[in-house]
Amino acid sequence: MTGFDVITMGRVGVDLYPLQAGVGLDEVDTFARFLGGSATNVAVAAARHGRRAAVITRTGADPFGRFVHRALAGYGVDDRYVAGVPGLPTPVTFCELFPPDDFPLYFYRFPKAPDLEIRADELDRPAIEAAGILWTTMTGLCTEPSRTATLTALGARRRADLTVLDLDYRPMFWESRDEAARWAGEALEHATVAVGNLAECEAAVGESDPMRAARALLDRGVRLAVVKRGPAGVLAVDAEGGLAEAAPVPVEVVNGLGAGDAFGGALCHGLLAGWELARVIEFANAAGAIVASRLACSAAMPATGEVDALVRKVAA
Amino acid sequence: MTGFDVITMGRVGVDLYPLQAGVGLDEVDTFARFLGGSATNVAVAAARHGRRAAVITRTGADPFGRFVHRALAGYGVDDRYVAGVPGLPTPVTFCELFPPDDFPLYFYRFPKAPDLEIRADELDRPAIEAAGILWTTMTGLCTEPSRTATLTALGARRRADLTVLDLDYRPMFWESRDEAARWAGEALEHATVAVGNLAECEAAVGESDPMRAARALLDRGVRLAVVKRGPAGVLAVDAEGGLAEAAPVPVEVVNGLGAGDAFGGALCHGLLAGWELARVIEFANAAGAIVASRLACSAAMPATGEVDALVRKVAA
Repeated sequence: MTGFDVITMGRVGVDLYPLQAGVGLDEVDTFARFLGGSATNVAVAAARHGRRAAVITRTGADPFGRFVHRALAGYGVDDRYVAGVPGLPTPVTFCELFPPDDFPLYFYRFPKAPDLEIRADELDRPAIEAAGILWTTMTGLCTEPSRTATLTALGARRRADLTVLDLDYRPMFWESRDEAARWAGEALEHATVAVGNLAECEAAVGESDPMRAARALLDRGVRLAVVKRGPAGVLAVDAEGGLAEAAPVPVEVVNGLGAGDAFGGALCHGLLAGWELARVIEFANAAGAIVASRLACSAAMPATGEVDALVRKVAA
Repeated sequence: MTGFDVITMGRVGVDLYPLQAGVGLDEVDTFARFLGGSATNVAVAAARHGRRAAVITRTGADPFGRFVHRALAGYGVDDRYVAGVPGLPTPVTFCELFPPDDFPLYFYRFPKAPDLEIRADELDRPAIEAAGILWTTMTGLCTEPSRTATLTALGARRRADLTVLDLDYRPMFWESRDEAARWAGEALEHATVAVGNLAECEAAVGESDPMRAARALLDRGVRLAVVKRGPAGVLAVDAEGGLAEAAPVPVEVVNGLGAGDAFGGALCHGLLAGWELARVIEFANAAGAIVASRLACSAAMPATGEVDALVRKVAA
């Protein structure tokens, strides 16, 4: 054991997905249960590419918390930084599936999500410093004590590559948009990579034009800005002026949720491998498309060979 | 339309039941979704016996709230007193099934259950006064404004038969046991019928011996006390000295949850019919046993003929 390739930090929960698509939640009769939460899914996705991954998160002290540990073990993600918080239930999340582009989420993260109870003094700072990638998300900044913990973890990296902030902006977790922008700004001072879709970039840096958003993120000091443009593909710009774009991969979308996390785990894999930027972005883009074409999220993360095959098919 | 036979008041939510029994919630892969909440289930059970039933409750302003209306309509329960409360999610409840006697519940009723937002000034007092039965539950007393609303509804009855308090004591909804006993005491001043299991009787009147519990409830002024003794059957005692006991009905228990609500709906039916006490209790006892032998709760409420058939079979 020489440390982790990827340590993610943030949300975990139980996702309950309709076993019937194309109908409202009021008409769904049965649900399948999956491991969920963005940071957790990214760790799972990275592990599928053979990366040693761990997630720093918190569950309730309840049966769904035990499920989280069981599921992480099944996916080969280290659970040593996952603990239970008494008195707070493990969050559950329902979604509706209206392909191709409408997947509303209903979060049960009350009275407070345990993953917002991560404390700075509980962090394994040597492991965080030594990890190939630290992957943080904006949701961890929405309240204390996880805000200080997230900033502490980011600070421990001393701006070493690869220190990622996933902009992952969910308005319902924030008191105001200004608060979100303020703490995104603080976090960006420590990050070397920023990843977000257009709405998230707008919330973080006030720009929704892809190129302007990427430049604004670079202006904040990151060395790589990755802007997910939804149906228009992905744009990545680095501080040396490198630029890569990936066109959307034509797939039949079943469930768009989790595609961004598949993208994230694959991005970790490509960046750790030291591939050139265009290859990294193409690979991550294809991984996201594969998960969008499947019902599940964590359970649907593709292995490296599957992603490579899709990249080749698209290029052909 | 000449008014309702039964108006219940209290909890509603979405029950998510494991499609695999005998395993912990950490091992359950799929769930079925049912209408739930004790007061709601009692209304459904009464409707199955042909009674005109309505439930006074509140949902979130969300898809699961729409499901509640759809499900009530399907069961023939009037939904005119069901409204959505913006900002509060419709509660969801998970359970574990360890037959025959262990069915833990995991409530997601945060930040506050909408059904605790029922307000006194929203009540249809003429309808409550005119109903054959008003069925209230102790959970409605656990906080404001539903506490005042519940006491107002009870008070509107002016101790007319049949005014029921279901002791339905769930410790997690209360700040302390003393608080629960205090408000149970207030509510009992307005009730003419009290129903509870041994643990609930102990919480409400400090007695867990069946006969002493029944007497204590009668001392508080109710005219009928019904004590559910679990595996030992049911005891009912009235103010005129009448006494009836029903022995447990031997069934293979699948899910004990909802059996008490089936009992309640059948109790309503028998009391409204004016049957003698022994027949009422036997009928309600058999209805509870039928639901205990089935996975679902609201969806498993028996029709009158099914209950009669089991009563005859037990007597034979």
